[in-house]
Amino acid sequence: MSVTAPQGFRAAAVACGIKASGALDLALVASTRPCTAAAVFTTNQVKAAPVRYDQAMLAHRRAGFRAVVINSGNANACTGPQGLSDVYRVTELAGFLLGFPADTILMMSTGVIGVPLPVDKIRAGLMRAVPALSEAGGEAAARAIMTTDTRPKMAVRHLTIHGAPVTIGGMAKGAGMIHPHMATMLALITTDAEIDADRLQTLLRSAVDASFHRITIDGDQSTNDTVMILANGAAGVAVDEASMPLFGEALTDLCMELAKAIVQDGEGATKFVEIRVRGARTPEEARRIARHIARSPLVKTAFYGEDPNWGRILAAAGAAGVTFDPDAVSLWIQRENEPPLLLFDRGAPALYFEEEARRIFQAPSFRVLLDLDMGDGEDWVWTCDLSHEYVTINGKYRT
Amino acid sequence: MSVTAPQGFRAAAVACGIKASGALDLALVASTRPCTAAAVFTTNQVKAAPVRYDQAMLAHRRAGFRAVVINSGNANACTGPQGLSDVYRVTELAGFLLGFPADTILMMSTGVIGVPLPVDKIRAGLMRAVPALSEAGGEAAARAIMTTDTRPKMAVRHLTIHGAPVTIGGMAKGAGMIHPHMATMLALITTDAEIDADRLQTLLRSAVDASFHRITIDGDQSTNDTVMILANGAAGVAVDEASMPLFGEALTDLCMELAKAIVQDGEGATKFVEIRVRGARTPEEARRIARHIARSPLVKTAFYGEDPNWGRILAAAGAAGVTFDPDAVSLWIQRENEPPLLLFDRGAPALYFEEEARRIFQAPSFRVLLDLDMGDGEDWVWTCDLSHEYVTINGKYRT
Repeated sequence: MSVTAPQGFRAAAVACGIKASGALDLALVASTRPCTAAAVFTTNQVKAAPVRYDQAMLAHRRAGFRAVVINSGNANACTGPQGLSDVYRVTELAGFLLGFPADTILMMSTGVIGVPLPVDKIRAGLMRAVPALSEAGGEAAARAIMTTDTRPKMAVRHLTIHGAPVTIGGMAKGAGMIHPHMATMLALITTDAEIDADRLQTLLRSAVDASFHRITIDGDQSTNDTVMILANGAAGVAVDEASMPLFGEALTDLCMELAKAIVQDGEGATKFVEIRVRGARTPEEARRIARHIARSPLVKTAFYGEDPNWGRILAAAGAAGVTFDPDAVSLWIQRENEPPLLLFDRGAPALYFEEEARRIFQAPSFRVLLDLDMGDGEDWVWTCDLSHEYVTINGKYRT
Repeated sequence: MSVTAPQGFRAAAVACGIKASGALDLALVASTRPCTAAAVFTTNQVKAAPVRYDQAMLAHRRAGFRAVVINSGNANACTGPQGLSDVYRVTELAGFLLGFPADTILMMSTGVIGVPLPVDKIRAGLMRAVPALSEAGGEAAARAIMTTDTRPKMAVRHLTIHGAPVTIGGMAKGAGMIHPHMATMLALITTDAEIDADRLQTLLRSAVDASFHRITIDGDQSTNDTVMILANGAAGVAVDEASMPLFGEALTDLCMELAKAIVQDGEGATKFVEIRVRGARTPEEARRIARHIARSPLVKTAFYGEDPNWGRILAAAGAAGVTFDPDAVSLWIQRENEPPLLLFDRGAPALYFEEEARRIFQAPSFRVLLDLDMGDGEDWVWTCDLSHEYVTINGKYRT
């Protein structure tokens, strides 16, 4: 279902030839009613042309949006002035075919960097996609935005606001391992609630902080990362001050499901790991340490090898740039629905059975808990392991 | 040769059983004369017991040092109070066997974290090592400090100070890929010049900044990283204010050779790559960008795949947390002794033959040049690729 679950949204997907494999590579999502829109973009200094375009459109207008064009297989990044001009050509054509001004059309791209966008292929694809728009097109759209993803990522939430049923639908693509290091993450979310653009931006920012930003290091994002939401009001009910928390909770929940799906489908990933740090002076310090652990290649290869080599976790924590007393630190690992196993107890190795630790690391999903015993700061990130398959995928991505 | 090249230094290496493989795992380096000493240690919050011990000894005295005990196979890190006590037991025994006070003996360790140091094995090893000390023991010592290294790393420099011949010798072990992410880097350097401890510390700090720190991200070091130098004065000449630059240059040159050897022998490394950034506002910003590029798994896997996927390099640069204008950026790649090939020209793809770019990436060693066109800031780092072999080594390190 994904983005077409809410009322008034239709989608279509075609294979227009950007991907040499012949797989779906162009998605079109359109609303029967004008939408408010909000988005969170990459903070990378090098922004892809579609990101620059969307930022300009969202600064230019906050309502009246009609559709989003998304292509995979080409990021349209580092493509110079031609890249931006190509986005305009695509959105103008999509607007023309849909019967709306070009500035009501948004665009996202993901794929190889530095190769000019094949606009002719996209043009031909749009001419097939527009007549194919349908309320059943959500899943195909979710497939069309995939790059090295192995499965589409979709989520839907239903809630009731002032007695009226409201739906939120979303699709995402990821693939980069944890903290998608420049491996583009795209998400498009739709809702049939009515929400003004400012509220929508506030709610989206908060939802992204609790979800997609948990799998992404700030300032270490791709040229194309984009999370966007469109609200078309087709449900006939407005999200006001009173119902914002309710809607925000559902939106956050949906984003968390999509973010989790991205990590679980990380390139070559065989493990899903939650890194939780508590006892820091502040949540920011806890988060910094959690992220540093989660991005260490030595930690990630130990996850892959199912080797409970906890010394690497402590070493990564100590290199995060946060001061703490190593003699006060404790470390646990935990398998779902089981009590945590203490490995390191206030500065010294704990007594535990190696086989028990190994059994936890052998689970497809487990948690790492680190307590610094300094304060109340707590935070967490989601990550995956670093496998042979990751190297294979990324060593040969373009070929 | 290595550390026994300078006059008055002897070394021995034995297999004392820390490594299950039966390989050499204990090195002893001793001086016939008392030495001044200086060292640069890891900035990791979690410091191994031998690092804590050496820091205390170097604060306690700056001259009169006699020997260094180095074991591989066990890092003696995260071992609690027992870990520090174990270092004292080892240095006391070494001092007793050599006939010197315990506080003239230093220690380094590298290997698995979190496992108690097998002091009994080291005791037995020392009893064999002390009588085996010899001026020919340098190479065996360099072998004994290896962990996942595939070859020993040694370097020697000869210079003349005030007419007298002076020698500097060194050995190192590394192995972690670029920026040895917590993969311990140890280096021991010896010289027969006479230098007071303050000058020695100044010269070592400067040499390390231009060498080992080029392959290590500050604050992202192992629990055990140590670079140490001993000066015993056996050459009969003192390094004074006038000869400091000469000695410093030779020391830096030796450190660069050892640092380069560490990267070239990086775990699973098949490529040696210099990342050079110029045109930044400051050298610090240039260095930050160079390091960010060098640590990106996507960039490193592209090196491994010999895929000149330069978009990943630009994306990594843009995520370094340094603001710049992507439309002013240019990027080249260069094979040794050949002119650089322009890939990206002030914000847009350059015209070049893909085969030519691929040929450069197929070289075992090449350079990446990034020009931000903002100022005079320039800096560089050395890195290697991320291979299947790296994952294999680190997924199974303990088993």
